[in-house]
Amino acid sequence: MSDKSISLHRKLKGKIYVESRIKSKSFDYLKLIYTPGVASVCKRIIDKPKSIFQLTTKGKNVAIISDGTRILGLGNIGPYAAIPVMEGKSVIYRNYGDISAFPICLNVTDKEKIIETVCSLEPFFGAINLEDIESPKVLEISDRLEKELPIPVFHDDRHGTSVVVLAGLLNSLKIVKKKISKISVVVAGSGSAGYGIAQLLHFAGCRHIIVLDSMGSIYKGRKNLNKYKKDLSKITGKDKVNLEEALINTDVFIGVSGKKNLLKSKMIKSMRKNPIIFALTNPNPEINPKIAKKAGARIVATGSYKFNNQMNNALVFPYIMRAILDLKITTISLDLLYSTAVALAKSVPSKKLYEEFIIPEISDPRLQKKIVASIKKLLQSS
Amino acid sequence: MSDKSISLHRKLKGKIYVESRIKSKSFDYLKLIYTPGVASVCKRIIDKPKSIFQLTTKGKNVAIISDGTRILGLGNIGPYAAIPVMEGKSVIYRNYGDISAFPICLNVTDKEKIIETVCSLEPFFGAINLEDIESPKVLEISDRLEKELPIPVFHDDRHGTSVVVLAGLLNSLKIVKKKISKISVVVAGSGSAGYGIAQLLHFAGCRHIIVLDSMGSIYKGRKNLNKYKKDLSKITGKDKVNLEEALINTDVFIGVSGKKNLLKSKMIKSMRKNPIIFALTNPNPEINPKIAKKAGARIVATGSYKFNNQMNNALVFPYIMRAILDLKITTISLDLLYSTAVALAKSVPSKKLYEEFIIPEISDPRLQKKIVASIKKLLQSS
Repeated sequence: MSDKSISLHRKLKGKIYVESRIKSKSFDYLKLIYTPGVASVCKRIIDKPKSIFQLTTKGKNVAIISDGTRILGLGNIGPYAAIPVMEGKSVIYRNYGDISAFPICLNVTDKEKIIETVCSLEPFFGAINLEDIESPKVLEISDRLEKELPIPVFHDDRHGTSVVVLAGLLNSLKIVKKKISKISVVVAGSGSAGYGIAQLLHFAGCRHIIVLDSMGSIYKGRKNLNKYKKDLSKITGKDKVNLEEALINTDVFIGVSGKKNLLKSKMIKSMRKNPIIFALTNPNPEINPKIAKKAGARIVATGSYKFNNQMNNALVFPYIMRAILDLKITTISLDLLYSTAVALAKSVPSKKLYEEFIIPEISDPRLQKKIVASIKKLLQSS
Repeated sequence: MSDKSISLHRKLKGKIYVESRIKSKSFDYLKLIYTPGVASVCKRIIDKPKSIFQLTTKGKNVAIISDGTRILGLGNIGPYAAIPVMEGKSVIYRNYGDISAFPICLNVTDKEKIIETVCSLEPFFGAINLEDIESPKVLEISDRLEKELPIPVFHDDRHGTSVVVLAGLLNSLKIVKKKISKISVVVAGSGSAGYGIAQLLHFAGCRHIIVLDSMGSIYKGRKNLNKYKKDLSKITGKDKVNLEEALINTDVFIGVSGKKNLLKSKMIKSMRKNPIIFALTNPNPEINPKIAKKAGARIVATGSYKFNNQMNNALVFPYIMRAILDLKITTISLDLLYSTAVALAKSVPSKKLYEEFIIPEISDPRLQKKIVASIKKLLQSS
């Protein structure tokens, strides 16, 4: 795979390009789209600021912003080595969401400087996608930008991951016939993903959530909690427990810990009947699905294509962004995320749903229309 | 024209988009261009930083940077209303230079903040194009960025304009049979364009140049000159004169003054035989070409398509940028600008050259190959 990927990239010499909607080289066109004709378009925008959405691409452009500090499983590799990932993201936006996404790889890692830079870039863009920036810095960046910018700030590691997890969980619960309000969930990891997942599960009606970081469970009154962990402590369990203790008599394990083999068979055995295991760390999950199954897991999902039930954010970000742009949504609300998760879950027909197929396949060409239409419908009815 | 331009823009809903080089939606491709395969590409770039040019689009991407403070003939209209112009520029880059150009419209006008922002954005780009930023601020931004960035910083208002003017002048001198080393030139206007033109004419061997701003001629010892006007005072005339005085017994008038009808018939009459008049202010030139001709001008050029000899920067920036990217040029030297001007001038065959045709037509489809090949040849032999 490694060699094949490098040789494909070498052949492509870059995966994206800026294309023109005007193919003609005739001067008659040039006069209309550039000087002098374009001046009238500029003046129209000054007179009627909202016409910018009819006359330019602003409403369609997404900036993919990364400082390269937390790239995939690679960590802090900087903004240059991050380019192939951001271009890949742009390809997915185009191919699955029909969206123009511009990679912006920042040569600064300071929180305030990132916020300032993104605010400076806003005019040309209809939405921001924060990508692969280290936590908790990125959570504050995301919050601050949401307050300061008139356009939506989508944070894929937080928002996208939470949606795919909730979608998978909703479908899993259909299979095991449990209600979200009754289940107990353990989330291992409290970075962007863990934070987003706990918030969305809570919004979806889940009342028993324990979130753990490397020091154990997050609970009210624990010392030295940052702002985001404090937020979590308000919706999670009250006791100090480690992972092993936390899992006893629970229904669901969600791993976004970054730790290979964190979950042990005996822990699964201590869970309630029909355990649901989402071991999402890439490239190596918290437990190998075969081992998890052997230990009694009813449903297992990972972040890897090597196993069934791949929880891939690519199932979410192109579609939710399409809906955001189409509906001119300015805030990524929990309601929007919930509706997207429900739409994604519903895209697997009931008769096809079973333990090894809880989430659709990425290459399903009908997904875009189906999910986007469904999000719109759900939002209108909510 | 105005209505036609607005309705075309409304129909297009934006003139550019980000396209993917991979058309397949198959998951097999996705694994190679995004996670997990892309990780090996990132690692390769960490190990061999130069491979970024083979494996990503970095070497092909141009950032068009504007803060909207000096847009065409419109002035300071801000970064939102500037978008149609920057998209138009991107279209010209694509259609004439086969170049991916990304508009970046900045919501800051402070010099230091612009410099900081552009430095932050550098990783994804192979070159910067500064566009429609007010002078003299932009000259300092351009200089500072050139020092701080490893990629070339092209400033179209300065560099591009100087090239098209020199190209037109070289061809004009062939017609009137004068040598550049012997002629006297008056440049009205000392913003980005005037500064660039004077510098390049001096480099090309012109020894008698007078540059004027709204206060009259720029000369050594004049009070309150900014850094760039001081630079000019070293290569221009020594006396304090106004435009009327300056033009007596000169060969060439170049107007980049922003002032409609600045040049009077009697001034042309005071010039040497066969006066060359480049009245380049848009949309209304320093003198109407018909009036200039009547006053004795042998050759007249303007910035407008409404007259013969349109000095349009679109004749320069797509081609010089193509050469910059192809040859991995990191500094916009006077040598490069001179070579480009010579290449552009030569693209008009001698037998076609006459008073009303000193510069090629933009829509000439052979220009790109011709000019880019010629620049490369000239640079290699210089």
